[in-house]
Amino acid sequence: MSELRVHNFTISLDGFGTGVGQAPDAPFGHAGERLHQWMFATRFWADMTGAEGGGTGADHAFAAMHEPGIGAEIMGAGKFGPPGWQDDPEYRGWWGDEPPFRTPVFVLTHRPRPSIEMKGGTTFHFLSASPAEALETAREAAGGKDVRLGGGPSVVRDFLAEGLVDHMHVVQVPVLLGRGVRLWDGLESLEDAFDIEAVSTPSGVTHLTFTAKRR
Amino acid sequence: MSELRVHNFTISLDGFGTGVGQAPDAPFGHAGERLHQWMFATRFWADMTGAEGGGTGADHAFAAMHEPGIGAEIMGAGKFGPPGWQDDPEYRGWWGDEPPFRTPVFVLTHRPRPSIEMKGGTTFHFLSASPAEALETAREAAGGKDVRLGGGPSVVRDFLAEGLVDHMHVVQVPVLLGRGVRLWDGLESLEDAFDIEAVSTPSGVTHLTFTAKRR
Repeated sequence: MSELRVHNFTISLDGFGTGVGQAPDAPFGHAGERLHQWMFATRFWADMTGAEGGGTGADHAFAAMHEPGIGAEIMGAGKFGPPGWQDDPEYRGWWGDEPPFRTPVFVLTHRPRPSIEMKGGTTFHFLSASPAEALETAREAAGGKDVRLGGGPSVVRDFLAEGLVDHMHVVQVPVLLGRGVRLWDGLESLEDAFDIEAVSTPSGVTHLTFTAKRR
Repeated sequence: MSELRVHNFTISLDGFGTGVGQAPDAPFGHAGERLHQWMFATRFWADMTGAEGGGTGADHAFAAMHEPGIGAEIMGAGKFGPPGWQDDPEYRGWWGDEPPFRTPVFVLTHRPRPSIEMKGGTTFHFLSASPAEALETAREAAGGKDVRLGGGPSVVRDFLAEGLVDHMHVVQVPVLLGRGVRLWDGLESLEDAFDIEAVSTPSGVTHLTFTAKRR
């Protein structure tokens, strides 16, 4: 069965997945790079960016789960570009000519536009759809593989609320952002639907994995 | 130097230290006992309640730090009793005749009343005071020992915001309460003032310790 998976979704100790003030030079707003330093230090990240080195410990082991078995991604409009990108008909995403996805990517937006084929195997499609509809479309495109749910926080929350997520990996970083978009709002008793594990690592972060109970 | 310490302060994954609907038979509201199961399973708790057994692993090691070196406690009105206790002049706290504190305890309330001497060494004093004033009073009573800050969440938050906390032990439990009183609101960049460690344990909880940087 094709699963819906969330990977490397990083939040602050106070639960924010994104700060305030997102802009072309600030994809995470005032959070800056504080949420993702743990990932930049991994071999996973070095390999993805063509750099040398990177740790191969627990943070790497979790981070690398991002890749295998994925046939498509779903993301929110805020992950695709800064506020207002919909007003630029030439906008092609944060990632330059060759995005790292290398699969079909379904961008949820109330203002769909024609699909864009990028270098390296990524094609961006634009959908105005409910979570269940978007998942059905992405599953068809994934050809039997799993679908990754890329964020941001409100998109993950919407799919969780509808019971559509099979696996979720959340990384909690010991910083307090104070402001931004929370992951956990409105998800009371989410633990009833998942087996949850927590593992803290020497970098100071805590990895939380949520595995959906058989329904 | 007498320190101000927070121990065994337990929150849900979504950051709530107390649920909604606190009442005489529900000190933590709809959270029930879900936040504190980890502690009930420790030798620390067994010893405190006169029971047998209890684990002596990491959860116990953290929990037991609650006791040594404490000369006084400060707590909010919501820790002393259910909503409305101020209307009952005979009310003497949640804990019966012999509360477990065995030191002076300063209860913050806008409606102070005469002090109450209990069995076993606990005396409840009632103060309408700012955090700094309350700490000064408690320090005098502690006779050179440390002062424990007992909660609830809004009281801990107020003392954190004023930079008065020297050590804080927070336990994060993998449940989502959805509603209640949050610990972390309004504490942006708290990490600048503390060295923070995270340790997850086999019970599934994560212990976070905050050690104030030398100021």
